[in-house]
Amino acid sequence: MASKRRLSFAQLLDRHAQVAVRVGVRPTPGQQVVMTVNQELLPLARLAAKHLYLAGASNVTTIIDDDELTLARYRHASDAAFDQASGWLFDGMAAAFKAGAARLAIIGDNPGMLAGQDRGRIGRAAAARAKAYKPAIECITSGMINWSISAGATQAWAKQAFPELSDRAALSKLWKAIFAASRADTEDPIAAWAEHNATLSARKAILNQSRFSALRFRGPGTDLTVGLADGHVWAGGESTSHSGAIFNANVPTEEVFTTPHCQRVDGYVTASRPLSLHGTIVDGIAVRFENGRIVEAKAEAGEETLHHLLSTDEGASRLGEVALVPHSSPISKSGLLFFNTLYDENAACHMAVGQSYAKCMDGGKTASKEELLARGANHSDVHVDWMIGSGAVDVDGICQNGDVVPVMRGCEWA
Amino acid sequence: MASKRRLSFAQLLDRHAQVAVRVGVRPTPGQQVVMTVNQELLPLARLAAKHLYLAGASNVTTIIDDDELTLARYRHASDAAFDQASGWLFDGMAAAFKAGAARLAIIGDNPGMLAGQDRGRIGRAAAARAKAYKPAIECITSGMINWSISAGATQAWAKQAFPELSDRAALSKLWKAIFAASRADTEDPIAAWAEHNATLSARKAILNQSRFSALRFRGPGTDLTVGLADGHVWAGGESTSHSGAIFNANVPTEEVFTTPHCQRVDGYVTASRPLSLHGTIVDGIAVRFENGRIVEAKAEAGEETLHHLLSTDEGASRLGEVALVPHSSPISKSGLLFFNTLYDENAACHMAVGQSYAKCMDGGKTASKEELLARGANHSDVHVDWMIGSGAVDVDGICQNGDVVPVMRGCEWA
Repeated sequence: MASKRRLSFAQLLDRHAQVAVRVGVRPTPGQQVVMTVNQELLPLARLAAKHLYLAGASNVTTIIDDDELTLARYRHASDAAFDQASGWLFDGMAAAFKAGAARLAIIGDNPGMLAGQDRGRIGRAAAARAKAYKPAIECITSGMINWSISAGATQAWAKQAFPELSDRAALSKLWKAIFAASRADTEDPIAAWAEHNATLSARKAILNQSRFSALRFRGPGTDLTVGLADGHVWAGGESTSHSGAIFNANVPTEEVFTTPHCQRVDGYVTASRPLSLHGTIVDGIAVRFENGRIVEAKAEAGEETLHHLLSTDEGASRLGEVALVPHSSPISKSGLLFFNTLYDENAACHMAVGQSYAKCMDGGKTASKEELLARGANHSDVHVDWMIGSGAVDVDGICQNGDVVPVMRGCEWA
Repeated sequence: MASKRRLSFAQLLDRHAQVAVRVGVRPTPGQQVVMTVNQELLPLARLAAKHLYLAGASNVTTIIDDDELTLARYRHASDAAFDQASGWLFDGMAAAFKAGAARLAIIGDNPGMLAGQDRGRIGRAAAARAKAYKPAIECITSGMINWSISAGATQAWAKQAFPELSDRAALSKLWKAIFAASRADTEDPIAAWAEHNATLSARKAILNQSRFSALRFRGPGTDLTVGLADGHVWAGGESTSHSGAIFNANVPTEEVFTTPHCQRVDGYVTASRPLSLHGTIVDGIAVRFENGRIVEAKAEAGEETLHHLLSTDEGASRLGEVALVPHSSPISKSGLLFFNTLYDENAACHMAVGQSYAKCMDGGKTASKEELLARGANHSDVHVDWMIGSGAVDVDGICQNGDVVPVMRGCEWA
C-alpha cells in the first residue's frame, strides 16, 4: 500500500490512538472515560485523550501505572502488606461505570516484571487485587459499558518478544507489528475496521445458523472433538453495551468464539505456540480430554506451572472458550510470538480453560449460573487461552444430525 | 557543612523523599497511602514509595498527573465538557481517608500551564473540580488523617522562577533550593527537623501563653493592627490527626500562624513580594483595612485579578490567617521567589484573605460556624496568602491590658 512508506512514527501512533478510540471504545457524546496506561506509553495515552475528546468525551480520567512503583512494594514492604490492594480506586471505577463511564485500557505489560520476586507474595497480591477489582470487572464483563483494550510497545515487552535484537530494533519491530495488527498502517484504518467487522459479523451469522453440536480439530498431534454448549452463541468483532453503545472490546481482534460444552470434550490436542503464564513460558503443551476434563497434561517447558493452573479449581481443567482465527490473519502472517494474549490469541485458533462468557450463551446475561452450568457453560476463577491452530490444522463442524461439514482447511475458512 | 559537597543529586533526592515520608506524612504500620504526583516527578515518587513501604505502609496508590492530558481537554473537548470532573476518583479518595489512609502530595505545578486557555472554561473546570474534591479535602482539613505536601522541581516551574537561566541551570537551581528548604542537604535531615519542630513548638507555646489581643506590623508602606480572634490558637510545625498520628502537613514549613479577628483589622499594608494567582503575577500590592475589611486595594501589576479575588464573597476581603516567619528562615535567606505558596509563604511573615482554620481556634473542630464567626473567625470559599514581612518590618504584640511587647524586630524573633 502506497501510504505505508510515507507515514512517520508520529502519524502511525496517532492513527493507532484513533483506532483505539473510534473503533475500540467509541465514547458517546458527553460520556466520561476511565483510561489506564503504563507511564512508558504516556505519548500514546495523550493521543488517545485527544481522540476521546474529539469524539465527544467530557472528561477523561487517566490512571497511570509504573512498574517501579509496583516493584517498590516487593522490594521494601513488610510481608503483611501483600494482602492489601487499592480497593478504593477500583470501587471508584465501579461507581464511574455504574454512572455511565466508558473504559479504555492501554496495555504494554512487561511479561517478566515480577521475575525473581517471591511466588507466594505475587499470588497473595494478585488475589487481593482480583478481589478488590471484582466489582469494576463485573461492570465490564456483564456488558454494562463500552470498553476496549489496545496496546503499545514497551521496552521490556519488546525485548521479551525479540531477545535477539537490540533494544531499539526490538522496540521498533514491536511497534511495527502493533501498527499492522491495529491496521494503523493502512490507507484508511477506520474503513478497514468497518470492513473487518462486517466480515466477522457475516462469519458469526453463518456459525450461529449452523448450530453445530461439536467442532473437530485435526492436525499434527491433535484430534480433538469439542462439544458446543446447548444454546451457544458465536461472538466476535463488535459488541453492544446494555445502553446500546457499539464498541470493539479488543484491538486487534480476529477471532469468532463461543462456549464449549464443559462435559463433552474428548481427544488430544497439541498447542501450536508457547504460552506466557505469570512470567513463565509454558511450551510444548499436549493434553488429553475425557468427558470434558483434562486427564493428562504435559509440557516440554513449564509443566509445573501448567499443572498449577489446571488444579486451581474444578473448572480450570475444562474448557470455557473455543475460538476460530484464520491462519491468514495479519497477526498470524507476522509469524511473531508476542507473549501477550491480546495479540497471540488472534494469531491462531485457540481454546481457553476456565470461565466461559455469558454473552456466548443464548439468554446468558439473565440466566442463572445453575442453568448455564446445566447447558454446558464452564465456571472457574481462571480463564487462560492457548493456541492450537496452525496451517496444518483442519476444523470440521458436526451437525445436530451427525453430518460433518468442513469449517476450516489449513485453518482458512472452508 | 562538610556533607553538603559530598552528596550526589541521587542522594539528595533520596533524602528529600525520606523527609517527605519520615517528617511529612509518617505512615503508621499497615496504613494505606494515597500519593499524588506529576509524571515529571516520577523518580521522586518512586523514592517516596520506597520510604513509605520502609516506614510500614501496606499499599501505596499513586495517582499520576500529566499536564498534556489536562491540556488535551482544553484543546479538543467540546465546551460542555468543562463542567465535568473526576468525581469518582475524589469520592474514592474520600472513602480511602475515611478507612484510614494517609495522603502524600508531591507538587511541582507549572504556574503557567493554562496560560492562553479560555478564562471561563478554566473557572468552570476549577469549580467542578473543587465541588467534586470537597468530600476528600474535608477529610484532610478536618484533621481526620495524617497528610503532607512536598515538592519537586519541574522544568516549567524552574523556568518561571529563573527565566534568566538555561533550562538545565534553572532546574538545577530550583532543586538546590528545594533540597535546602527540606533540609535534605544537612548532615542528618531527620534530626534537623526534630530540632526545627521543637523550635516551632516552643514559639507556639510562648505566643499561646501571651494571649495578645492584636499584632501590629510596622515597616515601609505598612502600619497595620491585626486584632486576633477570641480564643485564637497558634499552630505550626507538627500536627496530630484525630487518630493520634503526628505529621508535618507541609515540607518545608517555617511559620507559626493563627486566626485574626475578621472585624478588627485596621491600617495599611504593602506586600513585600509578588503573588502568583491563577497564572497571573500580582505585584506591588497595597491595601487599606477598616474594621477588618479591605476598603482600598491597589497593585502595580495584576490589579484586576486582585479585585476579582477580593470580590469573590464577603469573607474574601477580610483576613483568615496571620503568620509569623523569621527573616532568617532558609527560604527567606535564599532570596528566591518560587511562585509557589508552599515555598513563598515560608519566606516571610504573611497574611491570608479568606477562610480561617478551625484548628487555630480553641474548640474550633467542634464549635458551630456561627460561634466561630462571633469570635472573629472568617469564612470564605477562598484562602490566598501574601507576603508582608521583610527585614525592615517590626511586629509588636498588644496585650489584653494594652501593654505593647516586641515580638519581632526586622522580622527576627525579639
